[in-house]
Amino acid sequence: MRAEIIAVGTELLLGQIVNTNAQYLSRGLAELGIDVYYQTVVGDNKRRLIEAIGIARGRADLLVFTGGLGPTQDDLTRDALAEYLGRGIELHEPTMDKIMKMFAGRGGAFIESNRRQALLVEGATPLRNDTGLAVGNALNADGTFYLLLPGPPREMKPMFDNDGSAWLREQLGPAYSLHSVMLKFAGIGESMLEDLLLDLIEAQQDPTIAPYAKEGEVAVRVSTKAASIEEAALKLEPTLVKIRDRTEAYLFAEEDVPIEAAVVRLLTAQQRTLALAESCTGGMVSELVTTVPGSAVVYRGGIVSYSNEVKMRQLGVSRELLEGDGAPGAISAETALAMAEGARSALDTDFALSVTGNAGPAAAEDKPVGLVYVGLAERGRETRVEKLQLSGDREGIRLRATKRALYMLWQSLSGQRRD
Amino acid sequence: MRAEIIAVGTELLLGQIVNTNAQYLSRGLAELGIDVYYQTVVGDNKRRLIEAIGIARGRADLLVFTGGLGPTQDDLTRDALAEYLGRGIELHEPTMDKIMKMFAGRGGAFIESNRRQALLVEGATPLRNDTGLAVGNALNADGTFYLLLPGPPREMKPMFDNDGSAWLREQLGPAYSLHSVMLKFAGIGESMLEDLLLDLIEAQQDPTIAPYAKEGEVAVRVSTKAASIEEAALKLEPTLVKIRDRTEAYLFAEEDVPIEAAVVRLLTAQQRTLALAESCTGGMVSELVTTVPGSAVVYRGGIVSYSNEVKMRQLGVSRELLEGDGAPGAISAETALAMAEGARSALDTDFALSVTGNAGPAAAEDKPVGLVYVGLAERGRETRVEKLQLSGDREGIRLRATKRALYMLWQSLSGQRRD
Repeated sequence: MRAEIIAVGTELLLGQIVNTNAQYLSRGLAELGIDVYYQTVVGDNKRRLIEAIGIARGRADLLVFTGGLGPTQDDLTRDALAEYLGRGIELHEPTMDKIMKMFAGRGGAFIESNRRQALLVEGATPLRNDTGLAVGNALNADGTFYLLLPGPPREMKPMFDNDGSAWLREQLGPAYSLHSVMLKFAGIGESMLEDLLLDLIEAQQDPTIAPYAKEGEVAVRVSTKAASIEEAALKLEPTLVKIRDRTEAYLFAEEDVPIEAAVVRLLTAQQRTLALAESCTGGMVSELVTTVPGSAVVYRGGIVSYSNEVKMRQLGVSRELLEGDGAPGAISAETALAMAEGARSALDTDFALSVTGNAGPAAAEDKPVGLVYVGLAERGRETRVEKLQLSGDREGIRLRATKRALYMLWQSLSGQRRD
Repeated sequence: MRAEIIAVGTELLLGQIVNTNAQYLSRGLAELGIDVYYQTVVGDNKRRLIEAIGIARGRADLLVFTGGLGPTQDDLTRDALAEYLGRGIELHEPTMDKIMKMFAGRGGAFIESNRRQALLVEGATPLRNDTGLAVGNALNADGTFYLLLPGPPREMKPMFDNDGSAWLREQLGPAYSLHSVMLKFAGIGESMLEDLLLDLIEAQQDPTIAPYAKEGEVAVRVSTKAASIEEAALKLEPTLVKIRDRTEAYLFAEEDVPIEAAVVRLLTAQQRTLALAESCTGGMVSELVTTVPGSAVVYRGGIVSYSNEVKMRQLGVSRELLEGDGAPGAISAETALAMAEGARSALDTDFALSVTGNAGPAAAEDKPVGLVYVGLAERGRETRVEKLQLSGDREGIRLRATKRALYMLWQSLSGQRRD
């Protein structure tokens, strides 16, 4: 099945928002084994929308729309498709009831335009909206499939993942479903990982092996089409075993989670605690760790020591390390070590990570942009420090340093630390 | 002039990356006064690419391509356009020299496929690539304009901003250029700001007034078309004066910068220093402040007090506030106040901000999700605390709390504090 994603909204054409829906749907459709051939964005204009439908109809079997299901006169997707297909519009009573109840609950007067959110193209299957009002539409007309989803991602995503995917699976039949496992890696670059797996990648047929890099981490998706989860597991396992064998030291998860989530999970399971001492990352390690719900159980807190005074006063780094001729300075292995040990001792935790370096844009202490030291202090073990030379802009350097520090901690927690 | 943006790349159709290029170009074209009618994404397939060019040619005057200019056999944009137009391909010698020099400098053998990056569609104007190898193409063929840009954003953006925009301005002539001023607001929601400006927004003609919200901040773009910067300034000023009059208490910048940049700028100008004490934001305030180059001069450091022990030990919050029956608890105005004063005193700064609250997903201390207190301690003034009830998911709550804390500091620094 060939799909085209059509995002409807003038705000996309003005560049006011990024079309993240297209990415989300492309991935979701790929997981169902459906190939996306085109993505199109068109404004809130009925004539142009109908033209776009006509073009897409000629080159795809499934048209997935986002946007244009809301209450205003600019929300035209439903009307445009009905006009294109020569069908009428009908009211979806359960959605209408839900809308009326919401207005009654708020005590406000019913605004007539909201009725539009309960409308379906004649003959369409309604798709439940758990996070908003507008009902979705699913339709098979003359062998072409149409899926109409809302524009706001917080409505679109659950509708696609629930009723939308279920409806598509029904149309496809079971044998077409794609099953995949996402492997997440840290402490290794994309090209080095590809080298480790090169013969597998080059010889791949079924399962397929697709490596990619995102936000300071590297991932490999291993996929196969199968009629059931059990059959998929049998087909995937031999390839997974080979990859695990070669990449054990870097493979931190077999699902799509970031390394901070893997680290919080291990700390929780082992009932061990963490403190942080950050300079050039400025709180980014802490910010990422605390994005994980439940992190409060294992993460005690951190010190952002953006000045030498704070390094001395809050972390106990000695003045001799930081100041004076011949001193190693704030950006040094010695300071990274003292920061990690100082944070662990001040916050009385099992582990402490430290990061100090130059994220740019200009050289500092005559140290080049991208030079970063990360330290790991651990109760009962020797403190480790790693020296990194990172490339990229300020945010890129900070992100890579953050992920590298979390990788050091993961090595210790997972038994991969080798010293 | 009507434009269509065509992004070329199978990785977009697989959902491996988000098409941020389309947003960047849509905004950039809008600033030049060019309307974008469609955005299209097509894979690395010559036949489908040529079909997409044909469709776009029929509904737009300007086709802006991203991607498909690299060295591999999958990079097909240049070839597809040449084939569509019935033109040949020619070598751009300066780019070829640059590529050869790069290989010589690296001491590696020249890889023949890299020659492709120096190719132009016959008759095209070359566009300089300052951050990569592939040369861009600009072309006017039979009244349709074509702009071929690389796919990687770090190559595409400077090429569009420099040679690409300059070439488009030449084709448009001066009178068509759009000039705009971005006004940035904090401490006020999008709908309240729209209320304040409603009569201006409804009566707008020239200049236009476009409000929008992004990443916890609210912005208004005021735009006009003019032949020169001076003429534009004359046309924009009366509208800007009216907006400034009504929104002074919230207007923190007249350019597209985030509030953390405005705050760092004011601290630097006033030679005053900042400390932070964060609980539920987990380091996000610190992380944002330190994204600003030069923040090290005014930002001393911060404490992320994710546990009560750290609040007591590092910030001097008293145990009576945090523990025991009838104590206000960690999520309280009293604790926010003690955290801010504790951080200011421990780090010896002019200002300290504090944030404590419940970002979810579950209630904590019987306090609802979204309840957040922000505090501001200031040398020589009384400490302020604000109570917020924020909505959204965990990251949304954290971001809004962060921006609100920075707004409190901006009020003091800009003389808008009224107590």
